[in-house]
Amino acid sequence: MSQIFKQHLQKFISFSDEEFEGIMSYFKIIPASKKEILQQEGKLCRHQYFVLTGCLRKYLINEKGVEVTTEFALETWWLSENRGFEQQSEALFSIQAIENSEILAIDSQSMEKLYRDFPIMERYFRFVYQRAFAAYQMRLKYLYTMSKEDYFFHFYDAYPEFVQRVPQYLLASFLGLTPEYLSELRRKKRS
Amino acid sequence: MSQIFKQHLQKFISFSDEEFEGIMSYFKIIPASKKEILQQEGKLCRHQYFVLTGCLRKYLINEKGVEVTTEFALETWWLSENRGFEQQSEALFSIQAIENSEILAIDSQSMEKLYRDFPIMERYFRFVYQRAFAAYQMRLKYLYTMSKEDYFFHFYDAYPEFVQRVPQYLLASFLGLTPEYLSELRRKKRS
Repeated sequence: MSQIFKQHLQKFISFSDEEFEGIMSYFKIIPASKKEILQQEGKLCRHQYFVLTGCLRKYLINEKGVEVTTEFALETWWLSENRGFEQQSEALFSIQAIENSEILAIDSQSMEKLYRDFPIMERYFRFVYQRAFAAYQMRLKYLYTMSKEDYFFHFYDAYPEFVQRVPQYLLASFLGLTPEYLSELRRKKRS
Repeated sequence: MSQIFKQHLQKFISFSDEEFEGIMSYFKIIPASKKEILQQEGKLCRHQYFVLTGCLRKYLINEKGVEVTTEFALETWWLSENRGFEQQSEALFSIQAIENSEILAIDSQSMEKLYRDFPIMERYFRFVYQRAFAAYQMRLKYLYTMSKEDYFFHFYDAYPEFVQRVPQYLLASFLGLTPEYLSELRRKKRS
């Protein structure tokens, strides 16, 4: 399992096999069953998660009491509640496995030690956050400039496997569509 | 001017005076007049900007042809179009000074050299992006869980000086309100 993380890391930084063993010692590999809640909104935010296999989602409960999915993470994506993790405070979002998954988890103290002992990981996480932030900016751009319909078609073309894989009611929630309208758009797309 | 950046950097990393001089050599200090456009949407994204004094905004043109302000940056904040900068591609947003400002600017090649020659800057920018990403996540949380009215009141209480300082039609655009409704909310707040 750790090979998935190793190959991913090698895209960003260089390290020896011994160094990789050292880096891995700060992480735990944990299994997560489908529908398992890894982080509950309002509870102390202890971990950041990296998906080795499977899929996670992040969600909140809006003012009407409805769950809204705000992020997904497939293989080799990080998912975390960064403010809560940095400040060791209550999480603003919940995190749930939506498939049986294998996850890398790291807690705040281990992360600090990892940065201290392997400064090269500053570079790796600089890339992780830089790209996560850039992705959010792009999303904001789409939200402000595309209709919901166009956003769905864009999403469908950019991530076709993802659209097939994720439960449709969660995808609808993420895109701000009703499940019925999402079905209609998918039919339109196929025809 | 460079002292502002030095004091800001010292909150995140340690370095000698000689090292700081070395770091500063990768940046240019540039003046920007009020209303000056630093980055035009659709043009090659060359620089990241750090505000020494003054204020910048980032904006886009939506599908109705209306400018939407998506971010502001006051003193010691970074403002950039991160995807365009990393990929050296067209910017998705424009960046404009909204006061006479003094700015630090760094281009992509200088940034790569800076990371290579001063790896401690990986740590600094890891923090910058980590917090920028966390701030975006919080903003998403507010957008999904607060009415526009509550979001304004939250914003007013969290950043009172900012609300006074920024032109009201830009603040209205950022908060997704009409200028008239923003005036009404401000009156309500004061009464």
